[in-house]
Amino acid sequence: MSLLSFENPVFVAYALAAGVMVLKAVAMSWLTVVQMMRFKSGFRSPEDLKKTPLNPSPDPSQLLPDERVERVRRIQHNDLENLPFFFVAGGLYVLTSPPLLLAQWLFYGYAVSRLLHFAAYFTAQIHDVRATLWTVGSLIIVFMTIAVMVHGMGQL
Amino acid sequence: MSLLSFENPVFVAYALAAGVMVLKAVAMSWLTVVQMMRFKSGFRSPEDLKKTPLNPSPDPSQLLPDERVERVRRIQHNDLENLPFFFVAGGLYVLTSPPLLLAQWLFYGYAVSRLLHFAAYFTAQIHDVRATLWTVGSLIIVFMTIAVMVHGMGQL
Amino acid sequence: MSLLSFENPVFVAYALAAGVMVLKAVAMSWLTVVQMMRFKSGFRSPEDLKKTPLNPSPDPSQLLPDERVERVRRIQHNDLENLPFFFVAGGLYVLTSPPLLLAQWLFYGYAVSRLLHFAAYFTAQIHDVRATLWTVGSLIIVFMTIAVMVHGMGQL
Repeated sequence: MSLLSFENPVFVAYALAAGVMVLKAVAMSWLTVVQMMRFKSGFRSPEDLKKTPLNPSPDPSQLLPDERVERVRRIQHNDLENLPFFFVAGGLYVLTSPPLLLAQWLFYGYAVSRLLHFAAYFTAQIHDVRATLWTVGSLIIVFMTIAVMVHGMGQL
Repeated sequence: MSLLSFENPVFVAYALAAGVMVLKAVAMSWLTVVQMMRFKSGFRSPEDLKKTPLNPSPDPSQLLPDERVERVRRIQHNDLENLPFFFVAGGLYVLTSPPLLLAQWLFYGYAVSRLLHFAAYFTAQIHDVRATLWTVGSLIIVFMTIAVMVHGMGQL
Repeated sequence: MSLLSFENPVFVAYALAAGVMVLKAVAMSWLTVVQMMRFKSGFRSPEDLKKTPLNPSPDPSQLLPDERVERVRRIQHNDLENLPFFFVAGGLYVLTSPPLLLAQWLFYGYAVSRLLHFAAYFTAQIHDVRATLWTVGSLIIVFMTIAVMVHGMGQL
């Protein structure tokens, strides 16, 4: 049996956690669109000031930063700084044949920490709350990566 | 036969689409460099104002945003918000053993939508064109991710 | 034997290089935090001006860009524009069964080029040094991707 297969319960946990994170990240793009359409604001390209069905009453102020849009962009940027490294660290970690229960805690724990991070950031909780949730996810990535490297160095 | 192998035609389609997307993304970095060198503008670091073979006549205005460079940076940023999630969703989708024809449409369709998105953005087409092409790619990622999660939950 | 396994020495080289790159990328996040805490500056969200244990003496100027923080953010952004594409190109390249020695040079060479890129950028070396190191990594990604696509097209 290949370890990267849906017959491997560790891989199933990884695939589900990664799937939730992909949908979460894509949702940030859609949320940016929702905020831009709702407030008709926070655009970035000069051509977005042309009159179109999506922007019937253009105004130069639409190109200024709008905090209601910028907040979602910051959340999304935080995803870009984190999720790709979870995908890689998690995928390699599956190949080290970790204990199922530990792997589930790490994969699902990461996903939960990122969903809570979104909730805290979107509702503008104080930095200390956001930072704590971010730290949980970051340490899970570091833990898995070190496990991968120890495993890999054992094969040299 | 492992599903993640060049003997699997679904994987071959994924590898080709992912390869084109990697080259596309790397090309954005090079295009940023081309624009910066061509217009000697749009630099970002204070040390870029030092006189060097690549910048023989430095000027403080070189650190100001230059729309001809910023446009490419926005296109590249849009790639960063999309491609990593295509790579993961597509790779996991290969492991669900999807029908070959459907997988080819999804993988190649995604690649085409992103190349057209570049063409529309670089030539400053109206937002509605850009948004439509972006939406195609985003929905392909969502479709594949949901297929992965349904498949994964069936194994629990 | 699956090619994506720690029994494959090419994969071991990939896993080690990818692991170092994940840790490098995560370290950029932590370095951003270190710089923000050290200089109490370079914050981005309005709520970061609330008085908390991590920010006992808030001041509106804390939301202005601070070059000592922005430099790390630019380095991290450069990672985001590069590492995800190395992960994908490298992972697919492993599946083409390349010669071990060549693969090791490419994977480890990439990792070394990015660590040196960090050293050059963080110490504000001239653009030409930074650009040369960046180019090495970029060409390694392009080389591997072309090898993947040639391999893939041979299977059509």
